[in-house]
Amino acid sequence: MALTKSDIELAHTQIERHINRTPVLTNSYLDELVNAKLHFKCENFQKVGAFKYRGATNALLSIPQDKLKYGVATHSSGNHAQALALAARVAGTKAYIVMPSNSPKVKIDAVRGYGAEITFCEPTLEARESTLNKIVEETNAEFIHPYDREEIIAGQGTTSLELLRSYPNLDVVITPVGGGGLLSGTAIYSKGFNPSIEVFGAEPMGANDAYKSFKSGAIIPSTNPNTICDGLLTSLGKLNFGYIEKNVDDILLVEDSEVLSALKIIYERMKIIIEPSSATVLAAVIKNKELFAEKKIGLILSGGNIDLQSLFDHFRDKLQ
Amino acid sequence: MALTKSDIELAHTQIERHINRTPVLTNSYLDELVNAKLHFKCENFQKVGAFKYRGATNALLSIPQDKLKYGVATHSSGNHAQALALAARVAGTKAYIVMPSNSPKVKIDAVRGYGAEITFCEPTLEARESTLNKIVEETNAEFIHPYDREEIIAGQGTTSLELLRSYPNLDVVITPVGGGGLLSGTAIYSKGFNPSIEVFGAEPMGANDAYKSFKSGAIIPSTNPNTICDGLLTSLGKLNFGYIEKNVDDILLVEDSEVLSALKIIYERMKIIIEPSSATVLAAVIKNKELFAEKKIGLILSGGNIDLQSLFDHFRDKLQ
Repeated sequence: MALTKSDIELAHTQIERHINRTPVLTNSYLDELVNAKLHFKCENFQKVGAFKYRGATNALLSIPQDKLKYGVATHSSGNHAQALALAARVAGTKAYIVMPSNSPKVKIDAVRGYGAEITFCEPTLEARESTLNKIVEETNAEFIHPYDREEIIAGQGTTSLELLRSYPNLDVVITPVGGGGLLSGTAIYSKGFNPSIEVFGAEPMGANDAYKSFKSGAIIPSTNPNTICDGLLTSLGKLNFGYIEKNVDDILLVEDSEVLSALKIIYERMKIIIEPSSATVLAAVIKNKELFAEKKIGLILSGGNIDLQSLFDHFRDKLQ
Repeated sequence: MALTKSDIELAHTQIERHINRTPVLTNSYLDELVNAKLHFKCENFQKVGAFKYRGATNALLSIPQDKLKYGVATHSSGNHAQALALAARVAGTKAYIVMPSNSPKVKIDAVRGYGAEITFCEPTLEARESTLNKIVEETNAEFIHPYDREEIIAGQGTTSLELLRSYPNLDVVITPVGGGGLLSGTAIYSKGFNPSIEVFGAEPMGANDAYKSFKSGAIIPSTNPNTICDGLLTSLGKLNFGYIEKNVDDILLVEDSEVLSALKIIYERMKIIIEPSSATVLAAVIKNKELFAEKKIGLILSGGNIDLQSLFDHFRDKLQ
């Protein structure tokens, strides 16, 4: 049976005590800039620095005890790996994470820091999947897909539940779209909360598979995605596409240069760190001012995990 | 008559509706790192991005109407200039700001953006003072010193008022120290609130005039200060020194490299943007772990105004 608003409410009850209830920030400079009223839901302040912890926690807590003892497994080099690793530790079970051998050291360290067991593989989708299958066979661990799974979608949807409980009069909600977990969960909850709320996905031009899938009515996977938004490289999931097709009003495309400008504005004006993927939502509003004029808009800032080393290298130079 | 806790309470009542009541953030990773309970008062989220707006607003609102109409004036290339410019605009009067001709364009634009009238001068203290004196003579504007003035001290002290009203059981409060406005206001309020609260200033080694003055019992001005903490280059004010001598427990020195490490930890773990000066407080705790072990500590993050262009230049390279 298809997910509804109630499933997301249940997910929220289940995960509430494990997650951060992240703040919603506003900024009068940005409101003036776009002639609308913006409400930023700050998942960069979520545990592990991204909304992914909501879905991972909900998935973990939905596994029956006699199955949970075998642990959970996934392949990911991004926020889902960290989220699953921490959620497993909190639930008292093991996480097996398959990571490409060329993953950045900082990400490997983070996953290991949460106590997960890492298996490295060649950096191809085939190698990731075959390595994962082998681990699942050997360990009996439950594979937790990063987005194409109902408990994950319901968990990510709790972001907009909190947003809309705080600001029930929003006209619009916008989220970034990669695999579609956040966007599908947000759309299900928001339309269930108030069918007249408009829900948009924001997607980088260099990874526009959700746009193409949405417009054509069939999943068109990404081929060689190329964007600064490293969290949005994945292609839309099957379940996710179904919910998005039914509940989302449109997918808005943005250029990387527009993402970068939006990122800079958020850093300088809001004094918060977000990752490039998260800046797509503000970039989409700036690009489509007429569409959003005078509206009350919820923007989901999906995460804050970004390699800041370059900035610090620059500062270190100053110390010489 | 010397300032007391009541003066700071009055200042808060006066400025409350004009300022942001900034959040206090906590972080379990950092608590573990230093074996203490840290409470970060986030003045990087204050209007104009720094606590300076509190003092400037209080000073503006303390000027009688018949004098206020002539405007206010100061010389500054930093946060005080922006704070005074915006406070004057809100109060409906003019701000005359003397800025060194080599000020960064971003700072000039910000001050101009708040509607102030800028006069450029040679980048020497003598030129700044003589240019300012000429403007004050010509316009009758009131000179608002950035820290050596009672209304400014009382305004800056409202930061710790909000912090201690939210967390009355703190054992320690730490602020950065440059001219001493924030530290003196904090010390007056905190000791008035509870004499057993310990109050510390954190100061970069390369601008250690407050440390030397505190230890010797007489003001010893900075000569050629050199530190990454661009907000802490000024020397201690006369009024400020008196209050600090009487109410502060110690001044803790930190190296720029320690400031940089603390800044990086705050960016990466707390996902907020602060300026280097603000990182001195965490650097001081990390450096003096035994002194602060198991204590409940308030750390005032003074501001978030930092030139992030280098970071964005790096990102732009990625777009090529």
